[in-house]
Amino acid sequence: MDRVKVTKLSGFPEYLPAERIVEQHFLDIIRETFELHGFTSLETRAVEPVERLLGKGGDADKEIYGVTRLAQRPEDRKDSEAELGLHFDLTVPFARFVLENAGKLAFPYRRYQIQKVWRGERPQEGRYREFTQADIDVVDIGELSPHFEAEMPLVIAEVFSKLPIGRMTIQVNNRKIPEGFYRGIGIGTDDVTEVQSTLRIVDKLDKIGPDKVKTLLVEAGRTAEQADQCLALAAIRTEDLSFVEQVRALGVEHPTLDEGLEALSAVIRSGLVNAPGAMVADLKIARGLDYYTGTVYETQLEGYESWGSFCSGGRYDALASDGKTTYPGVGISIGISRLLGLLLSKGLVTASRATPAVVLVAVADEESRRASDAVARSLRARGVACEVAPSAAKFGKQIRYADRRGIPFVWFPGEGDVAHQVKDIRSGDQVDADADTWTPPADDLTPTVVASTPSP
Amino acid sequence: MDRVKVTKLSGFPEYLPAERIVEQHFLDIIRETFELHGFTSLETRAVEPVERLLGKGGDADKEIYGVTRLAQRPEDRKDSEAELGLHFDLTVPFARFVLENAGKLAFPYRRYQIQKVWRGERPQEGRYREFTQADIDVVDIGELSPHFEAEMPLVIAEVFSKLPIGRMTIQVNNRKIPEGFYRGIGIGTDDVTEVQSTLRIVDKLDKIGPDKVKTLLVEAGRTAEQADQCLALAAIRTEDLSFVEQVRALGVEHPTLDEGLEALSAVIRSGLVNAPGAMVADLKIARGLDYYTGTVYETQLEGYESWGSFCSGGRYDALASDGKTTYPGVGISIGISRLLGLLLSKGLVTASRATPAVVLVAVADEESRRASDAVARSLRARGVACEVAPSAAKFGKQIRYADRRGIPFVWFPGEGDVAHQVKDIRSGDQVDADADTWTPPADDLTPTVVASTPSP
Repeated sequence: MDRVKVTKLSGFPEYLPAERIVEQHFLDIIRETFELHGFTSLETRAVEPVERLLGKGGDADKEIYGVTRLAQRPEDRKDSEAELGLHFDLTVPFARFVLENAGKLAFPYRRYQIQKVWRGERPQEGRYREFTQADIDVVDIGELSPHFEAEMPLVIAEVFSKLPIGRMTIQVNNRKIPEGFYRGIGIGTDDVTEVQSTLRIVDKLDKIGPDKVKTLLVEAGRTAEQADQCLALAAIRTEDLSFVEQVRALGVEHPTLDEGLEALSAVIRSGLVNAPGAMVADLKIARGLDYYTGTVYETQLEGYESWGSFCSGGRYDALASDGKTTYPGVGISIGISRLLGLLLSKGLVTASRATPAVVLVAVADEESRRASDAVARSLRARGVACEVAPSAAKFGKQIRYADRRGIPFVWFPGEGDVAHQVKDIRSGDQVDADADTWTPPADDLTPTVVASTPSP
Repeated sequence: MDRVKVTKLSGFPEYLPAERIVEQHFLDIIRETFELHGFTSLETRAVEPVERLLGKGGDADKEIYGVTRLAQRPEDRKDSEAELGLHFDLTVPFARFVLENAGKLAFPYRRYQIQKVWRGERPQEGRYREFTQADIDVVDIGELSPHFEAEMPLVIAEVFSKLPIGRMTIQVNNRKIPEGFYRGIGIGTDDVTEVQSTLRIVDKLDKIGPDKVKTLLVEAGRTAEQADQCLALAAIRTEDLSFVEQVRALGVEHPTLDEGLEALSAVIRSGLVNAPGAMVADLKIARGLDYYTGTVYETQLEGYESWGSFCSGGRYDALASDGKTTYPGVGISIGISRLLGLLLSKGLVTASRATPAVVLVAVADEESRRASDAVARSLRARGVACEVAPSAAKFGKQIRYADRRGIPFVWFPGEGDVAHQVKDIRSGDQVDADADTWTPPADDLTPTVVASTPSP
């Protein structure tokens, strides 16, 4: 069965044991934090009808992986069977799940979802075809209270504060600010699509710089003065509430702008109280997707701004609708694989060992393996992960076996008058020990994952 | 985007919040137990080259979901790009991962893998198209020590002893016993494939009964006497080592039979010492798949034997081979979705609530939401999961909000001289409390998942 060539698939990352321990540590912290905030877990199926996947954005079809039963000829497919594709995000399946189960869910429905998604994009640094996302959303029926827009970034700030990474800054804006501002300077008066197209051009600011943005804006029909005003708005970035004055100083008036400033102030004010230093009001943040209608979020890792956003989201008035009922929501999504791709490739994070085992129980000879098994059983009964040596090799070889995996302790079972002993193979210290009471230092009990100095 | 019809997909189960909490509890216990035994986590990509997936078994192609980029026309596919399919088990991707990373792995390599798999089968009770499996395997280079065959069912027995389910019995056999026995009575003397075909017919015993098995055996060319002997062997089932005598009493001799009896005795002996009552020597267990060469395992839940095996596996001499090096292994796989499908549909297990939150912090009015947020922050800092009420509705309504989700405590923030209070909404008890020190009873801290009496 295995003579078939072994092929790496570009864009489908897989982790070796020590890297996977880093990933698990990240996923555990994310899950734990989401649950502390009362989000319930959801896992949706990997496939959705292609029709539903296509509904989201005009060019989404480029990214979708279709799924078909190989043994089923196309002509055998019943009309009632939908064409299926792998989900490319967790929002589309979440929206479908809400519509499908609305009668069985309690609203506002707070859910988290940590799953793989698939996109048929050309793989490149930090872009994968299969990757893991961790989303939180709150969705309600009819109306959604604005305080949830302030809550989302606080949860995310707590996640980032617990992860062994550098400083993450959550950049927050409100779509009503640029929309109101643009209208206030005459954009979209005749043609409302001008507002969206202006937003999309300004969204490229980080990638192409202000000069090119201005050129594009003018090409798109804005006046040079309008373009300068748009750029002046996008340049505003403050850690406190002073963005309001700075916007006011541009002299533009519009009721939507007022609403946006008030809403963003509420979010930033909450950040100043609950998570000082984690958020910044950044008025260039737009998010490409049309369905955001209020607060929008992006997140940068200090020193790695060029990698773009690792965590994004926003408020949408209609996450889902069945024609009668509309479900507004707000959500944010952490791009775990992108973040780990950066951290692991740059050597910014490491695991203390490549296995959960903290102890290797040595085996003197195969006849006494049962005694070693008994030691392991005692240790495990008290939550100490361990492994029994695979063979009764010379103790030196058994120690090297532990060393190769980073297992810090080797246990030598005693017999009769000979006491059991445990050796810390890092220090060489070896002491008498009782398998019914001995515990490793708390720092060693499970693998630790720490930020590390990047390799030069 | 959401006017597209919402469609349930048959065979793709999805859980509501309380059911998902049950699933998470099961997955957590499984992971924790695997890690206590020093298994390292592996996650492989969801897709493999179809060629590799097809390599495993003759009729596997019927089950495979092919994966193609929708935007890519077939004629644009480069010859170097392999045709891809979703994995239908975790063994094929594990074997490929071992071959691909042999130089970077430490052997014997102990890995666990908990992931979804996909099969295009016709969905029916307990059979899904997307389902979760939890596998452990130990794989070594060249040779694998037999004690690993005794270890696998011990790990599984520990998992089942920690899950809130009825009594699971791990049925163990060794393929060498029927193989040696069959040869000892003259099956396979002229044509070795007779041994395999006999094994496959006897494997149907539970489904079709001894009479039909005998008919099939005779139709396949066995004598009536041989068929009776095969059935006599298959009828042997003992909790202790007495199966050896019972086999000997059948008066058949063959060196392979001796090897098998010795190997199975070692596994059962280890079970008697380490997990009394968990295992049974059951000589009818065959496992359909050709690649098993030693110990084989199946597992039944008492009272639900007709549901078949929830956990199966065995020893294989060649999990993987690159032509030069062969990797023997032993593994066992828990069918989580099948098990949960039974337990949830029969009401055999329930979660104490539908959310991780143990406390709902009430909100007196929107102006004082900040005070409620502060209480929540204090509770969370000490690991108490909570949620702040979504609106400053009447307290009665806020209590009903908690009740609907099964949140047992509602916190009423104090102010000035008025003390904070916490109410157990199950008993109605309401007491003064301090958000910096109060903790819920240990049993309430996280949702509990317990076996329940089946609904009539």
